[in-house]
Amino acid sequence: MARVSQEHLDARRRQILDGAAVCFARGGFHATSMQDVLKEVDLSAGAVYRYFSGKDELIAAIVEEVLGQVRDGFEEAAHSSPPPPPDLLVASVLGRVLATKESVTVDGRPAFPRLVVQVWAETLRNDQLAAVLRDGYGAVRAAWGRIVEAYQDAGMMRSDVPPDDVARTMMAAAMGFIAQQALFGPAPSDILRDGLRALMSVRDVPDGDRGDTTGGSQLG
Amino acid sequence: MARVSQEHLDARRRQILDGAAVCFARGGFHATSMQDVLKEVDLSAGAVYRYFSGKDELIAAIVEEVLGQVRDGFEEAAHSSPPPPPDLLVASVLGRVLATKESVTVDGRPAFPRLVVQVWAETLRNDQLAAVLRDGYGAVRAAWGRIVEAYQDAGMMRSDVPPDDVARTMMAAAMGFIAQQALFGPAPSDILRDGLRALMSVRDVPDGDRGDTTGGSQLG
Repeated sequence: MARVSQEHLDARRRQILDGAAVCFARGGFHATSMQDVLKEVDLSAGAVYRYFSGKDELIAAIVEEVLGQVRDGFEEAAHSSPPPPPDLLVASVLGRVLATKESVTVDGRPAFPRLVVQVWAETLRNDQLAAVLRDGYGAVRAAWGRIVEAYQDAGMMRSDVPPDDVARTMMAAAMGFIAQQALFGPAPSDILRDGLRALMSVRDVPDGDRGDTTGGSQLG
Repeated sequence: MARVSQEHLDARRRQILDGAAVCFARGGFHATSMQDVLKEVDLSAGAVYRYFSGKDELIAAIVEEVLGQVRDGFEEAAHSSPPPPPDLLVASVLGRVLATKESVTVDGRPAFPRLVVQVWAETLRNDQLAAVLRDGYGAVRAAWGRIVEAYQDAGMMRSDVPPDDVARTMMAAAMGFIAQQALFGPAPSDILRDGLRALMSVRDVPDGDRGDTTGGSQLG
C-alpha cells in the first residue's frame, strides 16, 4: 500500500465526518445509512471503513466533536476574569459554538443546529450516547455554577437562588436558541444577548402584585 | 356493525394517541412502526386503522396535540392582566404544558419532553410538519412580543431592545428547559422561575467593564 501523509489522513477523516454530519443533520441518525454517507462524501466503502467501522462509530465521533465544540466555546469565554455578565457570556459562548461549523451546510443553512437537535433525539434511544452527553452537560453546568457564584459574591446578582438553578437557566436559553435555529433558520446570537439584557433590566413589581408568595427581588 | 357511543370512540382514540406518544417518545418517529404502536396499545390493526390511516396521520395528530397544549398553556397564563413578570410567566406556561401529559410515561418518566425533542427532529425531515410548527411558534412569539411591549410601556423593562428579541429569548429558555428534561430527567419549573428571577436581579457593571460597545442597562 502506498504511504500517505498524516495530513492526508486527517483531511480525509475530516471530509468523511463533515459529509456524515450533513447526512445526519438532514435526515437524522436512524434514517441515514452508510450508503447515504458514502454517496455524500463520494468515496468508496473501503476508503470510508478504513477510518470508521460503521455508523455507530461515526455517530460517536460526531457527538464527541459537537460536545467538544460546545466545551471549547464555553471554556474560552468563561475563563476571562472577571466573568462577563450573563448576557455577554451566554451570547459569546453561543456565537463561538455556532461559528465552528459554519462552512458545513444543509440546504444552504449551517448544519450545526440541526445536528445538535438530531444528537438530542438520538441520545433518547442510545444509552451510551446519553451518558456521554450527560457528562459533558454536567461539566458545563458545574463551571457555569461557579461563574454564578462569582456574580453573587460580587453583589451583581441576588444570592438567595441556588447557583445551579441559574446555570441551568442560562444553558436552557442557549439550548433553546440552538433549537430555534434548527427549526426556523439562522439568527445572530446578538438576539439572545439583547433579550437577556432586557430581562436583566426588569424591575420587580411590589411583592403583593407578583401573584406568588416567594417575595421580591432584593439583592442578596 | 354495532353502534358505539361517541364517548367510547373518543376514549379509544385517546388510548391510541397516548400509546403512540409513548412509542414515539421512546424510539423516535422514524424508528417506530405501526406494528410497534399496535403492540403498545394492544389493539388489532383494524381497530387502530379505523381512527388513523397510518403513521403519518398519527404523527400529524400528535404534533398538533403537542402544539395545542403549548398554545393553551400559554394563553391561559398570558391573558391575566397585568401580565405576570417574565420569571412567573415563563414558569407558569412551562408548568401548565408539562402537567398536561404527566400520566403518559416512558421508563417511569413523563413522555412529553422526549416527545417534544422527537417532534423537533422529525420536523427537520418533514416539510409539512415544519410548516405547522413554524405557524404555532410564530403565534406564540407574536403574543409574547405583545406582553414584552406591555412590560416596556409600564417602565418595567428597558425599551431599547426589540420586543421580538425578548420574546425569542423567553421562548428559548422554555424550549431549552424542556430539552434538558428530555435529556437528563424531570425537574420542576421552579428552577427556571428562580433562575430567571436571579437573572432579572443582575445589576449591570459600568459600561467600560462590559467588554462591548453597546452601552449599559439604563431603563428606557
